[in-house]
Amino acid sequence: MRVLTGITTSGTPHLGNYAGAIRPAVAASRQPNVDAFFFLADYHALIKCDDPQRVAASRLEIAATWLAAGLDPEKVTFYRQSDVPEIPELSWILTCITPKGLMNRAHAYKASVDQNEARGDEPDDGVNMGLFSYPVLMAADILMFNANRVPVGRDQIQHLEMARDIAQRFNHQYGAGRDYFVLPDVQIDEDVATLPGLDGRKMSKSYNNTIPLFEGGAKALPNAIARIVTDSRAPGEAKDAEASHLFMIYKAFATPQETDHFRRELADGMGWGDAKKKLATHLETILAPMREQYVTLMDNPERIEDILQAGAAKARRLATPFMQEIREAVGLRNGTRVKSAAPEKKKSGKAARFISFRDDDGTFRSRLVAADGDTLLLSGPYTEPKQAGQFATQLLSLDLRSLIRRNPDYSVTVLLDEQELGSSPAMQSEMEREALIVRLLQTVDSLAPASDA
Amino acid sequence: MRVLTGITTSGTPHLGNYAGAIRPAVAASRQPNVDAFFFLADYHALIKCDDPQRVAASRLEIAATWLAAGLDPEKVTFYRQSDVPEIPELSWILTCITPKGLMNRAHAYKASVDQNEARGDEPDDGVNMGLFSYPVLMAADILMFNANRVPVGRDQIQHLEMARDIAQRFNHQYGAGRDYFVLPDVQIDEDVATLPGLDGRKMSKSYNNTIPLFEGGAKALPNAIARIVTDSRAPGEAKDAEASHLFMIYKAFATPQETDHFRRELADGMGWGDAKKKLATHLETILAPMREQYVTLMDNPERIEDILQAGAAKARRLATPFMQEIREAVGLRNGTRVKSAAPEKKKSGKAARFISFRDDDGTFRSRLVAADGDTLLLSGPYTEPKQAGQFATQLLSLDLRSLIRRNPDYSVTVLLDEQELGSSPAMQSEMEREALIVRLLQTVDSLAPASDA
Repeated sequence: MRVLTGITTSGTPHLGNYAGAIRPAVAASRQPNVDAFFFLADYHALIKCDDPQRVAASRLEIAATWLAAGLDPEKVTFYRQSDVPEIPELSWILTCITPKGLMNRAHAYKASVDQNEARGDEPDDGVNMGLFSYPVLMAADILMFNANRVPVGRDQIQHLEMARDIAQRFNHQYGAGRDYFVLPDVQIDEDVATLPGLDGRKMSKSYNNTIPLFEGGAKALPNAIARIVTDSRAPGEAKDAEASHLFMIYKAFATPQETDHFRRELADGMGWGDAKKKLATHLETILAPMREQYVTLMDNPERIEDILQAGAAKARRLATPFMQEIREAVGLRNGTRVKSAAPEKKKSGKAARFISFRDDDGTFRSRLVAADGDTLLLSGPYTEPKQAGQFATQLLSLDLRSLIRRNPDYSVTVLLDEQELGSSPAMQSEMEREALIVRLLQTVDSLAPASDA
Repeated sequence: MRVLTGITTSGTPHLGNYAGAIRPAVAASRQPNVDAFFFLADYHALIKCDDPQRVAASRLEIAATWLAAGLDPEKVTFYRQSDVPEIPELSWILTCITPKGLMNRAHAYKASVDQNEARGDEPDDGVNMGLFSYPVLMAADILMFNANRVPVGRDQIQHLEMARDIAQRFNHQYGAGRDYFVLPDVQIDEDVATLPGLDGRKMSKSYNNTIPLFEGGAKALPNAIARIVTDSRAPGEAKDAEASHLFMIYKAFATPQETDHFRRELADGMGWGDAKKKLATHLETILAPMREQYVTLMDNPERIEDILQAGAAKARRLATPFMQEIREAVGLRNGTRVKSAAPEKKKSGKAARFISFRDDDGTFRSRLVAADGDTLLLSGPYTEPKQAGQFATQLLSLDLRSLIRRNPDYSVTVLLDEQELGSSPAMQSEMEREALIVRLLQTVDSLAPASDA
C-alpha cells in the first residue's frame, strides 16, 4: 500500500499544523504495511509565493520540522518535488491529454473567478497559469509513483478525482490493454484534530491566531499561550473545560488520564493563569526534544540537504525507469527502437512458462521462466502443491506493475496484500534489476490472455 | 546572434516544407555570425498527435531530413526538446508567472473556441490543456537558450510576443536588477517561397496536394509530378509559364538562367508531358544525393540517435547551469545556500578590479581580476591603450550573460557583435568552466554601478 503526502513549502509550520497534519502522518508512516512517500511540494509553492527567500526558508524549515517530528527517511521516501525532473516532464505529458474543461471546473480556480466577479473584475484577474494548471501537476506527483492512497483535506477531493480521471484517460489512450497508472484513492481522515487557535477559531496563519511549533525557541511558546483568550471567571470559580479552547489544546497533546485531571482542576477553580502555565509546561515537555533536533538540523542545512538528496535518489530509482516507459508509450522512443515497436509475441522455439516443482525440503514452489530459460520469479515455499499452481493464475490476473516492490538489495518482489507472491533471485546491480522488471512485465504480458478489448 | 528554430515532429516533410522552411533555415544556419539552435519539438507534437507510432516515426524522419538537407550538427546545436529535462522544468516555473488572461487571448486557442461556438458546442470542447498552455512551453523553449531571434510564420508572431511578455515578467519579478532572460525578436521572412501544390493551392498535407520529398523513393517523385494540374493547352501551343504552378515549382529549384530557358520552352509550345518530365529530372538531380543520405540515416537510426544525443549534451551544457541560476532566483536553493543568499558586496581586503597593461609585444590589454587575484577575462590585444581602457566600461554596460560564448575547449569568451571582447585562459574541465562563469557574473555584478531600481 503506497501512501503519498505532499507538503507545500510556502510557510513555517505552527502547532496546529503539527497536531492536525504532521503528527498523524508521521504516525501513519510507521505502520508496517505502508510504503509512505512524503514530498516537499516546492513547485506548487511557486504558484502562490513569489518571494524566493520565503520559498527557500520554508523548504528548509518544513524538512527540518518533519524530520524532528519523527519522520524516518530510512523507512519512508522523503524528497523534494523539484529534485525529481521526471515530475515536470510527466506533468507536460499529462497536460496534453487533460481536457481544458476539466480544469475550468476546479474549485480553487472557480473560487478565484467568483471573487473577481463579485468585485466586478475580469474573471481571470490575478489568476496565473500555475493556479489554473495545478491539478495536472498534482496528478503527475501522484501518478509518477503509482500511489494507492493520498490523504488529503476535503478541499482536495476534487483534485484527486481529477488525477484519477487523467490516469484513466492515459491508460485508455496509450495503454493498449495495460494500465500504466494506478488509480489513486482519496483518504479523508474525518477525525483529524483541528486545533483551535488563540481566539478559539481554527488555528491558522490567516487568522493570525497561531501558537508557534519550533519558531522562536522555548520562549515563544509560553508567550503565545499567555495570549489565549479565556472567559472572565476568576481563580476559585468553577470552569467548564469543554467550553474552553485552552483545554482543547491541552487535550490534543495529553493522555486521557492527564486530560481528566486537567478537567477536574478547572472544575475545582484553577485560575486561567495557572492553567496557561500548566499547558505551557506540558507542551514544552513534549516539544523540547523535537525542538532540539530541529535546531540541530537548521544549524546544519547540509545534513538536511543530504537527507533530501538521498530521498530524491530513492524516488528517482522508481521515477526514471517508469518515465522511460511512459515516454515509450507516447512515442518519445529512441531512434533505434522505432522499428521494433511492434509487439513480438509467440516467437518460435520454447516460450516463457510457469513451472511448478517440489523443493528438496518437501515444500512446493513455482517459477516463472523466460523463453531463454532464466528464472524471473520464484514463488513459495508452499505446503500444498495446489498453492504453487495458483501462482500462475494469480500473477496473470494482477496489475503486476503496481505490485512490484524493488528492494534495496536489488531483488524484485511481487507483493499481494503484503504477502510475497514471488521474488527474483537477488541481482548484481540496479541496471540488472530494471532490465529484469522490463523482462518480467513483457513476459507476463506475453502469457496473459487477450485483454477485454 | 543566437537564432532558434523549432520543428514539430508530427508529420513527414514534403517538397513544400523543404522549399519553404528547411532549405532557407539550413542556408541561414551557415552564415558566419549565427549561432543556430534547431530542435525537434516533440513535446509539442504530443498536443496534436496521440499516435505514438506517428510521433516516433516523425522524430526520426524529420531529424534525417534536416541532416540530409545539409544541417551541420557540428556547427549548429541540433537536439530534441524531450532530451532536455530543463525545458519542462522551466516551463513550469514560467507557468507560475504567466497570467491566465494572456493564454485566453492566444489566437490558436481562440480559433478553437470560435469553431466550437459556430457549431453550437461548448467553447472548450475538444481543447486540451496542451493546446491552451502551448505558448508557455514555447516561451521555455526560447528563453532556456536566450535566443535573440526566432524565425516564425505570421501565425506565431503572437506567441513570440507572449514569450517576450513572460520573459519581462520574470526579469521584473525575480531579476533584482538583472535580466535573466533575453527578450527574443521575431523574424518574419516575407519573401519565403510558398510552394504551390499539385492543384495550385499552397502545398499542404491538409489539402492532400503534396509532392513527397524523400518519402517513397525515386519513383514517388515523377508519379506525383504526373498529377500536377495543368491547363488544357496541347503540345505545340504557346504556354504562359507565369500562370502555371508547374513552372513555379521548377522556378523554386532552378537558377535564373534555367528558369528563363524553361519559360521560353513553354512559350515555344513544349507539351505539359515533356514539361513534367523535365521538372522530374531536374528535381531528381537536386534531391537524389540528399535522398541517398536520408536513406542511409533512416537505415541507421542509431546514427541519428548519436547525433541527437550529442546535440542534447551540447544544449544542456547551457541549460543545466542556467536552470540552476533560475532555480536560485525563484527560491529553489539548496539548503546550504539559503543562509548566504544575501548579497555579499564590498568585502574587506582587495576587491575585484580591471587592470590595463602593456604586453611584451607592445600591444595593449586589459584584464578582469577577481578579489583573490585570479584573472577571469583577458581582453585585446589592442593597438591603442584607450581601447584597453574601454574594456571595463563595455563589459559593465553589457548584458554579459547573453554575450558569453562557451567554447568547446572549455574557455569562456565574451563576444560583442562577434568581436571578442575578452576571453578566459583555457581551463581543464567543464565544471571549472561553469564555476568560472558564475564567478565572472558575480564579479561583474559586484563592480557594476547600482542598477536603475
